[in-house]
This record gives sequence, structure tokens and C-alpha cells, in this order.
Amino acid sequence: MTSASLTQTHDSIRAVQWCGDYLRLLDQRLLPAEEQWLDCHDAEAVTQAIQDLAVRGAPAIGIAAAWGVVLAAQRGTHLDQALAQLRAARPTAVNLMWALDRMKARIDAGADAAALEREAQAIQDEDLAANRHMGELGAALIEPGSSVMTHCNTGSLATSGYGTALGVIRAGVTAGRILHVYAGETRPWQQGARLTMWELVRDGIPAKLIADSAASHLMKAGEVKWVIVGADRIAANGDTANKIGTYQLAIAARHHGVKFMVVAPSSTVDMATASGDDIEIELRDAAELLSVAGRRTVIEGAQAWNPVFDVTPASLIDAIVTERGVIEQPSAERMRAVFAA
Amino acid sequence: MTSASLTQTHDSIRAVQWCGDYLRLLDQRLLPAEEQWLDCHDAEAVTQAIQDLAVRGAPAIGIAAAWGVVLAAQRGTHLDQALAQLRAARPTAVNLMWALDRMKARIDAGADAAALEREAQAIQDEDLAANRHMGELGAALIEPGSSVMTHCNTGSLATSGYGTALGVIRAGVTAGRILHVYAGETRPWQQGARLTMWELVRDGIPAKLIADSAASHLMKAGEVKWVIVGADRIAANGDTANKIGTYQLAIAARHHGVKFMVVAPSSTVDMATASGDDIEIELRDAAELLSVAGRRTVIEGAQAWNPVFDVTPASLIDAIVTERGVIEQPSAERMRAVFAA
Repeated sequence: MTSASLTQTHDSIRAVQWCGDYLRLLDQRLLPAEEQWLDCHDAEAVTQAIQDLAVRGAPAIGIAAAWGVVLAAQRGTHLDQALAQLRAARPTAVNLMWALDRMKARIDAGADAAALEREAQAIQDEDLAANRHMGELGAALIEPGSSVMTHCNTGSLATSGYGTALGVIRAGVTAGRILHVYAGETRPWQQGARLTMWELVRDGIPAKLIADSAASHLMKAGEVKWVIVGADRIAANGDTANKIGTYQLAIAARHHGVKFMVVAPSSTVDMATASGDDIEIELRDAAELLSVAGRRTVIEGAQAWNPVFDVTPASLIDAIVTERGVIEQPSAERMRAVFAA
Repeated sequence: MTSASLTQTHDSIRAVQWCGDYLRLLDQRLLPAEEQWLDCHDAEAVTQAIQDLAVRGAPAIGIAAAWGVVLAAQRGTHLDQALAQLRAARPTAVNLMWALDRMKARIDAGADAAALEREAQAIQDEDLAANRHMGELGAALIEPGSSVMTHCNTGSLATSGYGTALGVIRAGVTAGRILHVYAGETRPWQQGARLTMWELVRDGIPAKLIADSAASHLMKAGEVKWVIVGADRIAANGDTANKIGTYQLAIAARHHGVKFMVVAPSSTVDMATASGDDIEIELRDAAELLSVAGRRTVIEGAQAWNPVFDVTPASLIDAIVTERGVIEQPSAERMRAVFAA
């Protein structure tokens, strides 16, 4: 398939495309104004694309990193060095570490470039299958006729395709369970405004964009039944790191009796991290808050604090949906029952 | 004083300046990039400036409208028509109605243009005095050494000068009670980013800008002791309409044991409105969310929901500070004790 046909098939947009000897990424910094593809010919370019957010979304980062390892193997680059660079690209999403660990295990077992290519393809294919399955599982939790809310972008752009939270929304719309979606714009990077609305409009799903701070006012009106979000890392007790603002939505949801669902493949679960307190939260450049579209919007000399993730405690989560099943009212015990090694 | 000297005196910035036969407004749509003044020579121009947000902030809107009536009287415009136009400029802030009612009472009593000019000046002067007094009252509630958080802009730019919530912050900083301020950027119009940071940096107050959605993550760290906000209308039971996002902050504050203070002159109190359910919430154009700085940031065809105020129930408010005193744990009974006609 060519990239042109891929971008016209709605929920099957593929933002991470392996092209045999290079990796093609849909540059998410430029959407929705431009659909431009970025071709990465070595592991350094993939590392840079992850750091610069050309590719983002926890599952997509993991998949892209796996292809980065393949590129390193094809080019004869020092693999340990490529693994270390890719691993350090972003700290919060555990899918990155998971995918690299999986590639490393194949390397240690003596895999050649062709075998590594098959492993990366497996990681990508399994992610897509997981998304489809999670879509069914999550949608089944939603009462027919509901409005739901989501945050950040968890769709085809953030994954191998279809999406995690947005996959549940797609499945819920298809099944007639979800009638309307509200997307928080997700400051400062506007993933909701730029990316989720792009996917929802292209799919013809009835949706409205809201300011992140309007979520509670919306919930008070009583129309929204579920908040559905993705995850960058889920700790062993169910505490979930996700895009900044997720925790605030979970507090608001609980206050209004709105249910809260986390949707993520099992590669997002980090049983080696006991609780959310142990998750490193990435702080990004203050400039992301001080400028908009390259134009300074805040007085010179101003400072900003820009954490890009937060942790939602398991106690505020009604359901964690992975491809291994649904964990309701998550706890360390319930997580262990599904994810114990 | 000239406008140039006025803008250099920090907390005494005067964004609404009466110039004898026209009204000069600091155009808040252009800050902080440009400090440009807008001269209004008739009531229509004042109405337009209020509608277009060239002047904003509940007290400043009321003051500007009072000067609009003076302009109508000076020009021999039909006063009832000017009053009606000004009254309809924005629906939520009651200070607008309050100031116009006060001017109307003078008109009904036979006041000429000179007498109306004195009345508008009194409204402006009383607002400044109220702000100074509220600053003292509010700051006294804050434990020395605190960090606080605010939302939107409630400073000199939103009032006759000094500010309501930002007046309390100024007084608190002066008294050594407040060491650090976090300002929410306040989507979509960025009043916190563009205006509050402009005032804080000019005053040399230690401050950091945050995304609105980062407030809960910040509160969880335990440094912030108070959220301090202004108001556009306070109902008879203490329910408070203010900038969208205020309600979400109040929920987050209560969740974290952070205290919540509303600061507004008595002109913001509307004893004729029983509760927040009866307050009309202004919906503004979806374009405010779909474009940034005139540039479309969301896919064509996307819809948005853009309520610009919300209502915080009295039960989530620890203190309402007006120039008549502090009302702790506000209720209809406690409000009546202070504001009964």
C-alpha cells in the first residue's frame, strides 16, 4: 500500500510504516495543517523523531523504537549504543522500554537483521490485534446511548492503528453504544485538538472539542457517562501515568459519578514499578507553554512549569482494559492475578 | 498622568482611563505582544470593546460601561438605547448590570452629563478602594510562607487597578505571606498566560505559568495552600460564576485539602439570583478553540463547545472576600447577613 491510500482509510491510518529499509512516520507536529511524512534511515533519526514528538503515543513510540533497532542492525550500527539512545529518548512511557527489552532478548539470542525485522513486525501486528480486542472489551462496558469524553490522542496516530481509548470509542460508536464524543484539547501540545479531532472528523464520529478546563462543567450537565483515556505506564497497583490532565479528569469524574476507563495494551503495564509514586514524570521545556506556533505569547522573563504526564491513582479508576481482559476497581491483587510473570 | 507613565508603575497599571471626553482602554487582545490603547468616543465603541474583549474582567467591564453612559450623555445620544446596548454586551458578569443600574438611577434622578461623570468616577474610585481593602482582608487568611494558585486575570487589567484575587496576591506578597504564585494559562483566551503573567513579571512576583490541566498534579505535591480566584457573579447562596475552569479547580482543591478563596467587590454579588443554577453562562464562538492566533489548528469540519464561565457551588468555597468583609463557608444565610438590602 502507498502512504496516500493509507491516509484515506479512516480508522486504518498507519502513522508508523515500515518500508523494508527505512521507517516512514506521519509527522504529528504538523497535523492537521499538513500531512507530511518523515523518513528515518537510521536509529539516530528514530531517536530524534521520538524526542521531538514527530512520533508520539506510548504504543507508537515502542513500535517505532523496535524498527529503530532493525535499522541499526541493517546498517551494522553498534546495537547496544542504538538501544541505549532509543531507551533514553523519553522517560515516562514504558512501552518504549518494553519493546527494546523484547528486541534485546532477540539480539542476545543471536537474531540477525532479518529475524529482528520479523520481531518488530510481530510487535506492531500484536499491538493492532490488541487494540481491536480492547475495543470490543471496553465498548461492552458502556451503556448504549452514552456520551463519553477523552483526553490526548490514543487513536491510530498513537498506536499501530485503531487505537486504545480511541479504539474503544470506535468500537462503541460502531456498536451504537456511544453517540457523542467530547475531546479535551490537551494543552500544551494540543493532541486532542490537533490529532483526536482529526481522527474523529475523518471517521465521521459526532464529536466536540472542549477546553481541558471545561470538563467539569460538562460533566455537571450529566450527559457524559465515561471518561476513556490511554496510558503511558501502569504500575503494579494499577496507578496510571498518562498525559497531564488525566488525573484532574479522574478527580472530576469521581466527583460527578462519571466512570473512568484506562485502555492500554499489556506492554504498558510495568509490574516492576510498585506504584505511581515510582514513575518518573517527564518535564518538558517551558517554551511549550510560553509560545504558540513559534510565537511568544507570554511576557519575556516569565517562567513556566511543564510536566507532561501525571499519575491517576488506581482508586479513581473504574476499569483498566488490556487485551488480557478487564480489571475493574484495579488493585495490586487484581493486577497480579492478570499480570504476574 | 500620561498613559506611558501609567504603564510603568506596576500594580497601578490603569487599563480603563477616562480622558474627559473619551475613554481610553488598554487593548487586552494584543497583550503582551503589544501595549496598544483603544480610544472610545461614544457608547457604541465601548459596547463593541466589551463584546470583543478589548476590555474584560467583571469590575473593569462595569466601570467601562459607566463611562459609556457618560459618553452617551455628552454626545446627546438616546440614553435608554445606550443603556440597553451596553447591558446586552455580555451576559454573565453582573457588575455590568450593577454599574448600569447605578447610572440609570442617577439619570432617573435628573443627573446631567457632569453629574453622570462624577458618578462613573465614583464607581471607578470605589472599586480601587475596595480592591485595596479586599487585598488586606484576603491576605490575612493566608499562612505565611505559602504558595498559591490563581486562574484567569483578576489584576489591574480586570479592574480599576490592583485587582481582586490578584490584589490579595499582591497584598500577600507584600506582607510576606505568599512566596510563590502559579498561574493557570486559562484556555482558550489565555488570560492567565497573557495577562496575569504580564502583571506578575512586571511586579517582580515569583511566579510560574502552568497548563490548566496541571493544577491537580501541582496540588498533589502539597506546596499550594490556596486557590484564589475572582468572580463574575456571586448568587445569593454564595454559588459563584467565574471563568471556565474555576469549578474544576475548586473540585481539585477540595480533593487535595487546598483552600479556595473567591475575591470580588460587592458589585459582583447578585442577591436577586437565588443560586448558580439561575446564572446565564455565556457561550462564545467555537472559533476561539478551533484557531490559535488566527491560524486554524483543528481539522476543518470539527465542532467545539466553548462555555466561557462555569459555576462553583458555595459548598466548595472556603471564603468569599468582599470589601464588606470575609464570608467563610458561604451559605444563603451568611450571604444575607452581609448583603441583605
